[in-house]
Parts: sequence; structure tokens; C-alpha cells
Amino acid sequence: MKRKIIDTLKSSAGKFVSGEYIANELNVTRTSIWKNINSLRKLGYDIESHIKLGYKLNKIADVLLPAAVQSGLNSKIIGVKDNLIHHFSVDSTNNLARKAAYDGAADGTVIVAEEQTGGKGRLKRKFFSPPGKGIYFSLILRPKCLPKDAPKFTLMAAVAVANAFKRFNLPAQIKWPNDIMFDGRKLVGILTEMSAQIEQVNYIVVGIGINCNVKRDEFPADIRDVAASLSEINGENISRVDLFRAILEELDKLYGVVNESGFTEILKRWREFNITLGKNINVISAETGDTFTGVAVDIDDDGALIVQTDDGLTTVYAGDVSVRN
Amino acid sequence: MKRKIIDTLKSSAGKFVSGEYIANELNVTRTSIWKNINSLRKLGYDIESHIKLGYKLNKIADVLLPAAVQSGLNSKIIGVKDNLIHHFSVDSTNNLARKAAYDGAADGTVIVAEEQTGGKGRLKRKFFSPPGKGIYFSLILRPKCLPKDAPKFTLMAAVAVANAFKRFNLPAQIKWPNDIMFDGRKLVGILTEMSAQIEQVNYIVVGIGINCNVKRDEFPADIRDVAASLSEINGENISRVDLFRAILEELDKLYGVVNESGFTEILKRWREFNITLGKNINVISAETGDTFTGVAVDIDDDGALIVQTDDGLTTVYAGDVSVRN
Repeated sequence: MKRKIIDTLKSSAGKFVSGEYIANELNVTRTSIWKNINSLRKLGYDIESHIKLGYKLNKIADVLLPAAVQSGLNSKIIGVKDNLIHHFSVDSTNNLARKAAYDGAADGTVIVAEEQTGGKGRLKRKFFSPPGKGIYFSLILRPKCLPKDAPKFTLMAAVAVANAFKRFNLPAQIKWPNDIMFDGRKLVGILTEMSAQIEQVNYIVVGIGINCNVKRDEFPADIRDVAASLSEINGENISRVDLFRAILEELDKLYGVVNESGFTEILKRWREFNITLGKNINVISAETGDTFTGVAVDIDDDGALIVQTDDGLTTVYAGDVSVRN
Repeated sequence: MKRKIIDTLKSSAGKFVSGEYIANELNVTRTSIWKNINSLRKLGYDIESHIKLGYKLNKIADVLLPAAVQSGLNSKIIGVKDNLIHHFSVDSTNNLARKAAYDGAADGTVIVAEEQTGGKGRLKRKFFSPPGKGIYFSLILRPKCLPKDAPKFTLMAAVAVANAFKRFNLPAQIKWPNDIMFDGRKLVGILTEMSAQIEQVNYIVVGIGINCNVKRDEFPADIRDVAASLSEINGENISRVDLFRAILEELDKLYGVVNESGFTEILKRWREFNITLGKNINVISAETGDTFTGVAVDIDDDGALIVQTDDGLTTVYAGDVSVRN
């Protein structure tokens, strides 16, 4: 509906359109039009209203509509043509993407939303996803690989986002396995899910959430000290459309590299961006629930973290790490 | 509907029931009743028909209805109470199980069918599943483990079936990873699928297909030389209900062991049943598509096959092996 309202206002080319006309066109009530206009304003659309004349669109918002994102997009499969699906509000883009993948969505399909009402993070955490303030999307991949290779696509996604950040002179520090950090706080979270047989991955869904233009006091109190937003860094709002386009391009490029020649280049780039290796860290293993400390030595060929503890080397496949001061 | 017809005939306690009465009770046509009665006969129900009196049930069939299977079942969670769902005909029990798991089905839920019209095997093969001649079921597990541990549940399933076979003095030879063989031909196929995050398996679906009472010439020509049926071994039909109950009990027992103390016992038992280790084998790797030969040395802690080739030791995570003569 929001999409249709925007289209109607756009097609009037800067003239007022009456609420009654829009309501008739869309076959909904005028109250519904009014509510949706208000939602669009919150997303940044400058829509003028006049008690008699109706509504007029003065300025479109920085909204991740395919027409805007795909304009000038340099990508082979990821996010091209029908591979980019936009929603204004969803519970979780990963939920939609899993459903779409189950129903046969193509390799490289991207589902992006302005808002997630039930955004999910790793280890059953929530991901705060207020409307128009971040980039929340899920990418469906259908690589020919074994389930044990899936974690490396998470590293690939982190490197792609880091590469895109670099293009905008934004800092790109990756904490193992795939968080992107600023000032010790999280800018980007990645949640990877898969459906697989023992012999073959059916599909991987890589969910990526980026805090773009969230003001410090807009974060919920319980994550305010651990979350960061890109707008903090330069002190100004960034263009979500431009950044999202760059991320899709980088994902497409790296996915091409992986399909061509494996993960060697990804692991190399990951090591360059990482802020975990060489540090004293606390580890909470997702596998055993154990907590221990040690020095992060390296990642292995599967992307697992190798930690030197007092008892020798140990490999962490999944878990949470934090750098010790 | 078949279930209701059986119940109606059973409740008449050996007397004839008219087709018209059953049709009215079930609110369907008499033709539909007649068709379903014929299907039930194919499953082994002895239903007498009389042109005036109607139908009479003389003998129930060896059909995997919960009432029969759960009678005397010694199991903690697998297949107990609502955890056993029976269908007469489905496309694939794994498809139903994945859907049920997605919708929240409990740990230990079993979906069994008399017939699969689109039975699936490993590596995108079909699994021949004619009505009433085999045991075709899928087990939903929700273990707390990483995706890399999932293949071991496949080995667990193979060992459970082998244990159950032993109880009936049936031979139990496991070919890596999980086929159960007789005379070099396949008796049992297992197809394991999963949904997972990097940190945690959401659910595993273990699909098990067992050829019970299929005559040699009933197998399609293209698999006749590679498939075997339990009835060949003793020369008589086996009770599917009794065997299925035993398999559920063995699965339940081993799943308890795994949750209590991991896979050590499973791997030990698997080695006892296996017919692959120590043999000269041909390998088709599912990972690379490569074909090579070598000696199967052992399985590692993750259940992967270690093969000694001319170039040294190599680990096969997924693929097809055949013993060389």
C-alpha cells in the first residue's frame, strides 16, 4: 500500500492529490491513507498536506526501493532484477527469506525491509531494527557445498560489508566471527541459517543488520552501551541506498570469487579486517557453554577460532568472544 | 478416510456393514468407499464383500497404525503418544517432517507412511516406496549441537536399525556412511536433513526407508540388482509393526545415550557393524565430484571416512563408496 501511495504521489508530478482520489484508487479508507502517509513521513518522505487539496510529495526519502538501489548497481546475480524484494515492515527478513528459499527463490535473492518488528540476532538475541534507520536484509545463497562450509559464508558476508564500508571511508573492524565494531560497540550483526542434507547445502540465508542513522539515545537502554551507529562516526546521516548498493556489489563480487576459487582470499581479507587475533580474550563456547580465557591465535581453514589457553590450543567453532583489557 | 472405514468395520465386530451405511457415516459416495476398500485390501486387510450385506472385516493388516505400533512400545520420547503420526500415502515423509518441524513439532516426533509417491534418497536419488511393503518414516530430533555434529546422527540411526535387525536375527551390515546391505544390495536407506544456525541446529530430520516385503520382481528394473528386501533373507514376510516398534525403541535408547554422553558408544557400535573399513574401495566425493580409489582406514570422531590413497590419507565427509573386487 505504501508503495502504491508513493507511486500515485510521484505520478502527479509535484501537484496536490486529494486523499479521496488516492483512497478510491487504492480502494481503501481515507483514514488508512492518512495513517500510511504518516508512516512514510517517519521514513523521511517530505509529504505536504493541505486540508482541501490533499497531499503533495516534495522529496522522496532514502528508502531501499528496488528502483533506487538497482539504479547503477554493478552485480551479476545478487540483488539484480527480481532478486531484490523490498518490504516496509516485516517480523524478520530471515524468516521471510527462509520461507522464500523453501519455496524455491533463486540464488542471489535479497529481501530487505525498512523495519523489523522481530529482528533476530545470533544466539537467540534480538536485533533492534527501527524503521528507516538501518539496513536490514537477508541474502539467499545456493552454493554447492557441504554443511561444514556454511560458517565461511558468514565470514564472506562480514568481509563484503567491511569492503563496502571502506568505499565510504568508514572504519571496518571485524570481531570474530562476523560482528563489525566501532569503538568496541556493534555496528553490524550477521545471522546465518541454513537448510542442508549431509551431502549438500540446500540453501544458506545470510541475515545482515546495519545500524546506520540511529541516534545514541534512540537505542533501547539495555543495548545503548554495546551498540553503535554509522552516523556517529562522521556526525551525519549516511545514504542507506548508496551503502546498500555497495554492499550488494561487494557480496556479489566475493560470492563470485568463492564459487570460482574457494575461501582462501576471503580468509586473507578477514584476517586483515579482524580485531580479535593476537588479543587476550574471554570465550563463551556455544558448543559446551564453557567460559574460558586465552589468546586468539588464528582462524583455521574452516573459519573456526584457534585459542591458546593454559592447557594448550583449542578450537572454537561457535561462540562469543570479548577482548580482555 | 481409510482410518475411518477401518474403525467403522472394526466397531461392527465381525458383522457385515452396508456400503450405504459407511458412506452416510463418512459423508462420501459409495464409489469412494469401494475404492478405499480396494486400497485397504492391497495393504493386506482381509475385507469380505457381499452384494447385499456390504462389507465385513475378517483380518486386520500389518499396518503401522499408532494403536498397533505403540502397543508395548518401550520408549521415552521417540514415537510415544502424539509423537507418532501415521499416513497411508504421502509424497515423502521427510517433506512432511520438515514442515512439521518448522511448525514446532516436538523432539522425537515420528511421521510414518504406508506409501511414498515421491520417496527421496541420498544424492537426489529416488527411494522406491510401494504401499505396505516397507517401513518409510522420518524422525524429528532437536539435539543441542552444532551443524558439524549432524552427520553423526545419521550413523546413530544406522546403528539403531542394525540393533533392531539383530533382535530379529536379521543380518546388519553397514556400508559407510549409513546404508544397510544384504548380499551387496541395499536393504535400508537413510536421508538426513537439517535446519541450523551456525551456532545451533534447529532440528534434524532423519528419514529411514526399509525394504521389508518387496519381492525381487516388484523392484523397478533399474534398481533390481542393487536393492534387497528383508523377506528375501528368511523367505517369508516379516511383521512390519514389530520391526518398526523395535527400531523406535533402539532409536530412543541411542538418542538417550548421545544426549547423555556423546557419540563414543555410537562410533564403537558403528565400527562393529561396518563392512567398509579395511576394504579396497572406490570413492565418489560429494564435495568435489572426484573419483578415486584407496583403502578405508577408519572413521574419525565426526564420522567422516579416512581413506589411504597413493597420495596419503584423505578425509571423505560425504560421498559414495563401493567395495572393489
